[in-house]
Amino acid sequence: MGVQLSKPALWEELRSQPPRITTICSHSSLQIFHGARLEGFSTIGIAEKSPPRFYDAFPKAKPDQFLTMPKLSDVDTLVPQLQKEHAVLIPTGSFVEYVGPEKFNRLPVPVFGNRHVMAWESDREKEREWLEMAHVPMPERFKDASEVDGPVIVKYYGAKGGKGFILAKNSEDLLASPIRQPHVIQEYIIGTRYYLHFFYSPLSTDGYRVADGSLELLGIDRRDEANIDELYKLGSQEELTRSGIQPSFVVTGNVGVVLRESLLPQVFEVAERIVKTSIDLFGGMVGPFCVEGIMTEALEFKVFEISTRIVAGTNLYVSGSPYSDMVMPGLSTGRRIALELRRGLKEDRLGEILS
Amino acid sequence: MGVQLSKPALWEELRSQPPRITTICSHSSLQIFHGARLEGFSTIGIAEKSPPRFYDAFPKAKPDQFLTMPKLSDVDTLVPQLQKEHAVLIPTGSFVEYVGPEKFNRLPVPVFGNRHVMAWESDREKEREWLEMAHVPMPERFKDASEVDGPVIVKYYGAKGGKGFILAKNSEDLLASPIRQPHVIQEYIIGTRYYLHFFYSPLSTDGYRVADGSLELLGIDRRDEANIDELYKLGSQEELTRSGIQPSFVVTGNVGVVLRESLLPQVFEVAERIVKTSIDLFGGMVGPFCVEGIMTEALEFKVFEISTRIVAGTNLYVSGSPYSDMVMPGLSTGRRIALELRRGLKEDRLGEILS
Amino acid sequence: MGVQLSKPALWEELRSQPPRITTICSHSSLQIFHGARLEGFSTIGIAEKSPPRFYDAFPKAKPDQFLTMPKLSDVDTLVPQLQKEHAVLIPTGSFVEYVGPEKFNRLPVPVFGNRHVMAWESDREKEREWLEMAHVPMPERFKDASEVDGPVIVKYYGAKGGKGFILAKNSEDLLASPIRQPHVIQEYIIGTRYYLHFFYSPLSTDGYRVADGSLELLGIDRRDEANIDELYKLGSQEELTRSGIQPSFVVTGNVGVVLRESLLPQVFEVAERIVKTSIDLFGGMVGPFCVEGIMTEALEFKVFEISTRIVAGTNLYVSGSPYSDMVMPGLSTGRRIALELRRGLKEDRLGEILS
Repeated sequence: MGVQLSKPALWEELRSQPPRITTICSHSSLQIFHGARLEGFSTIGIAEKSPPRFYDAFPKAKPDQFLTMPKLSDVDTLVPQLQKEHAVLIPTGSFVEYVGPEKFNRLPVPVFGNRHVMAWESDREKEREWLEMAHVPMPERFKDASEVDGPVIVKYYGAKGGKGFILAKNSEDLLASPIRQPHVIQEYIIGTRYYLHFFYSPLSTDGYRVADGSLELLGIDRRDEANIDELYKLGSQEELTRSGIQPSFVVTGNVGVVLRESLLPQVFEVAERIVKTSIDLFGGMVGPFCVEGIMTEALEFKVFEISTRIVAGTNLYVSGSPYSDMVMPGLSTGRRIALELRRGLKEDRLGEILS
Repeated sequence: MGVQLSKPALWEELRSQPPRITTICSHSSLQIFHGARLEGFSTIGIAEKSPPRFYDAFPKAKPDQFLTMPKLSDVDTLVPQLQKEHAVLIPTGSFVEYVGPEKFNRLPVPVFGNRHVMAWESDREKEREWLEMAHVPMPERFKDASEVDGPVIVKYYGAKGGKGFILAKNSEDLLASPIRQPHVIQEYIIGTRYYLHFFYSPLSTDGYRVADGSLELLGIDRRDEANIDELYKLGSQEELTRSGIQPSFVVTGNVGVVLRESLLPQVFEVAERIVKTSIDLFGGMVGPFCVEGIMTEALEFKVFEISTRIVAGTNLYVSGSPYSDMVMPGLSTGRRIALELRRGLKEDRLGEILS
Repeated sequence: MGVQLSKPALWEELRSQPPRITTICSHSSLQIFHGARLEGFSTIGIAEKSPPRFYDAFPKAKPDQFLTMPKLSDVDTLVPQLQKEHAVLIPTGSFVEYVGPEKFNRLPVPVFGNRHVMAWESDREKEREWLEMAHVPMPERFKDASEVDGPVIVKYYGAKGGKGFILAKNSEDLLASPIRQPHVIQEYIIGTRYYLHFFYSPLSTDGYRVADGSLELLGIDRRDEANIDELYKLGSQEELTRSGIQPSFVVTGNVGVVLRESLLPQVFEVAERIVKTSIDLFGGMVGPFCVEGIMTEALEFKVFEISTRIVAGTNLYVSGSPYSDMVMPGLSTGRRIALELRRGLKEDRLGEILS
C-alpha cells in the first residue's frame, strides 16, 4: 500500500456514482477529454463565460458537459455543482494559473494527484531545493556577474512568459547588458532540448519500479519558442540586439522527438530520483510530470525545469507516441490519467491518487 | 442546401458509374490515392511520359490506373479518356502549376472544390484583397523603403520557388541591399511558423458550423526550407551575405507540429472569416485549404499566405494527426476528400462540392 | 533466386527450432524487440554486466531473455549460448562499435544481412569508392586549402562522435582556422538534411524492383545534433568561435520529417544505384540501410554518408511512419526485419538474408 494522499472515505461516493473527468478548457484539455472518453468516463469542461467553439471541430474530444462562470478565478462558485456532478479535477498549468495556486489547493473537490506538489513547484527556490536533494544535474547559478566565465542566461523574478531574459555568451557580453534587479544569473547550457513526459503510478506493481509504484515514459517533445527559434534568419544575435530586437522564449507549440536510446538509462535515473525525493518531501508526485533539460555534446542531461503535471507537449501524442506505444498501443497521457483513475476505483485505492 | 457550384445534372452519370479519384503523380498524390482506397474508390494517376516507379514501393497508395501523355501541359488531350473513366480531379499545387491555372479551369472534367477560387489565389493582389475583407491579420506592406522602421522581407514579382528574396533587419540594411524592380516590401514578422490544414465541408451539418457547412482542423506542419533553415550553422546572415551566400526559401519537406491549445480559438476564427468571405466573393472554398502564418511572441497570428487546396504538409499525416484523430481515427486529408465525395454521392449533392 | 550470402544448410536447425531475434541492449533495440514480438518471435537482449532497467518501462518491447557478460567486447564468450538459443543477430551501429567490426564479423552465429558490407562501410575511403561507382552525388573533396572556393567542413581522421570539426564559409575563414593533420577538406553543402530509411529485400518479388529483390522506403528523420543545432541562440558562429565555443555534431536524438513528393524519384534512384553497386561489389546489402544527405535550394540531393544497417532515426516510427503505413499499416523497421526473417524461413531462403 502506497502513500495515502487523502482518506478514501472522502471519495466514497465516487465509487457508487461514476466520477467525471473535469478540467479547464485549455492547455491539454482536448487530449484529456479524448483519453477519458476512450476509457469510458464522462467529462466536464470548465470555461470562462461560454464554451469555446473549437471543441465542435473535435467530436471525439468534446466534453459531455460545460460549466461556465464569469471569471475563471471564481471557480469556487462552481464547487457545489462540481461536487454534485462527482467531478475529479485534472490540474494543468493553465488551470492552476487562471485559478491561482492557493485557491486551487483549497477547492473541496477531488484533484487527481497530490496537491502538496504545488507548494514545491510554484516556488523556484523550493523547486531547486527539491532537485538538489535529488542530485539532479542542473545549470550552475552565479551570485554575481564577476563569477561568470562562460555563457549565461539572466532571468528576472516575475518575468512573464519567457520575455525579457538576457543571453550572454561570455562575461564581456554580460557586463555590456543592461541588467535590472532582482535577477538570477544562470549558466547557459548549450545542447539540444528534450521535454520528457513521465508518469508515476503509485498503483502499478510491475514495470520500472520506484518506491511502491512504477515509472513510465510516455513521450518526448521540444517546445517551439517565439521569437528565439527563427530569429537567426534575420541576422546574428549580436546585430539584432544592436537593432533593438531582443530574444524571447514564449511557448507557441511543440515538435515531437525521440532521444538516443543509450541516453534512456540516464534520464530514467534522473526521473526516479525526482520521484523518490518527492515522496520524502511531501508524500510524492502522482501521475504525469515533465523533466525539461538540455543534452550537451558530452551527453550529459542538465535539467533546467520540471513540471509536476501534464504538459502541453503531450498534445502531440493524442494517439500514442513511439514510447507509449510500447506500454500500450495508442496510449496518450490523457488516457493514462483515465486508466489510473479506473484502476484506483476498481482496487479501492482512490486515496493514493486523489487529494 | 449550400451554394451550388455546378449543376448536379452535369455529374449525373457519376451516380450510376462510380467516380474515380484522379490527380497528377506528384505533390500529395500518394496520400490522396491512399485515402481514396480506404474509402473504396478506384484511382487514376496522371503522369508525364511514363508512370513514376516510386509508386511500386507503396502498394497501399499506388493508383489502379495510369494515364500518360508527352507533356503535362497537354492534359486536355486526355479529356475524352478522363470523361469515359468518370474521373473526378483533385487539384494540387503541382497539378495547377504544370497544367496552368487557365487551362486547368477550362477542363470539362469534374473538379473537386470550387474552380473559381483559382482566380483569387493565383493573383497575389486579389488574394490580399480577400484576406483584408476577411479582417485577417497580415504583415504590413510598405510603399517605399523610406517608410520602413523594422525588419522587412523584399519579394520580387515572378520570383520562382522562394529564391532571390532579401531579408533586412532594419531600414539601414534595406538601403544597403541591391533592390531590383518591381518588388514588394513587406513587414518581416518574427516568431514561429505554423501551416494549418483546414477542411471546409459544405455538406456537414454538425461540428464547427460556418455558413451552411462546417470547418475542421486536420493537422499542422512547418515547412523545411533550403537554404534558410540550416544556413546559420555556417555563420551569421550578415557575414554570409558578405561572402555572397544569399538566403533562399525553397520548400524541401515538412515537420509535424502542434499549436498551443489556447491559440486554437484565434486560428479557427481566422479560418472561419476566410471561408465566409470566400462564399461572398465567389461561392466559397470547398474542401482542404491551408492558413500559413507566424505566431509572434505576443501570441498574435499573422497570416502571410493561404493555399486553397490540399498542401504537401498533409503528407505527414497519412495515418492521422493529433488533430484529425479527434475527428475520426486515422483520418488523412486525402481520406477526408474521399469521404466528402462519398457523402456528396450518397446525398445527391455533388453540385455543392464539384465544379 | 538471389545472391547466396551463406549456405542454407548452415542455418538448417533454425527451421526446426524457431530462431530468436537478438541484439545488444542499445541503439534501436526497443524497436527491434517490439517488432519481433509483433511477428511472433522470441527475443534476446545482450547487455554488459546486467540488464538495463529501462526495459521494465516498456512491456511491449522488453526482451524475453537477457544474456550478460562483464564487457561487451567479450561477446564471443556468449557464442555457445547464442548458438544453443538459436540466436539471429541484428547488427546495429552500437553492436558493431562495442564489439568491434572484425570480432563481430567472425562470430559463428547467424547475422541478419550481409557481413561483407562492413568492410565497405567502416572504411571511409572504400565507402566513397562504392558511392562513386554508384554515381551518387556527393560533396566535393579538396586536396588542399588553396583549392577551396566556397563553404567547407574540415574533418579529422579518427575524430570521435562529431567533435572537433571546423566549418568555414570561405577560403579566408579556412586559412584563419587552426587546422591539424591529417584531415579531409570537404565541400559544405547548404540545405536541409534528410536521413532516408530504406529496406532492401532480396526475397520480395513485387514492389520497386531492384536486381532480384525490391526496395522500400520506411521513413525519414533528421538528426538532432549538440551543440550545433541550438548554438545560434547565443550568438553568431563567428563571435562564438572568438569566445572559444566551437560547433560540434554529437547526435542526441531525432525528429520526424517527410520529403517533398516530387523529390522521391530522385532519392529512390540514388538508393537503387547504391544497392545495385553493392551487389556487384560484395554480394549486396540486405535489409535496412540509410541514405543521409542534404537537399539543396536547387533540389539536388547530395549524399554525405550511408549507414548499412538499421539507424536510430527509425525509433521515431515504432508504430509506422507516413511512408511505411503505405507499405503495411503500423510497420516499423524492426518489424520489417522480423517479417523478412519470417519469409526466409517459410520459403527456405535463409541463405539469402543471413550470413
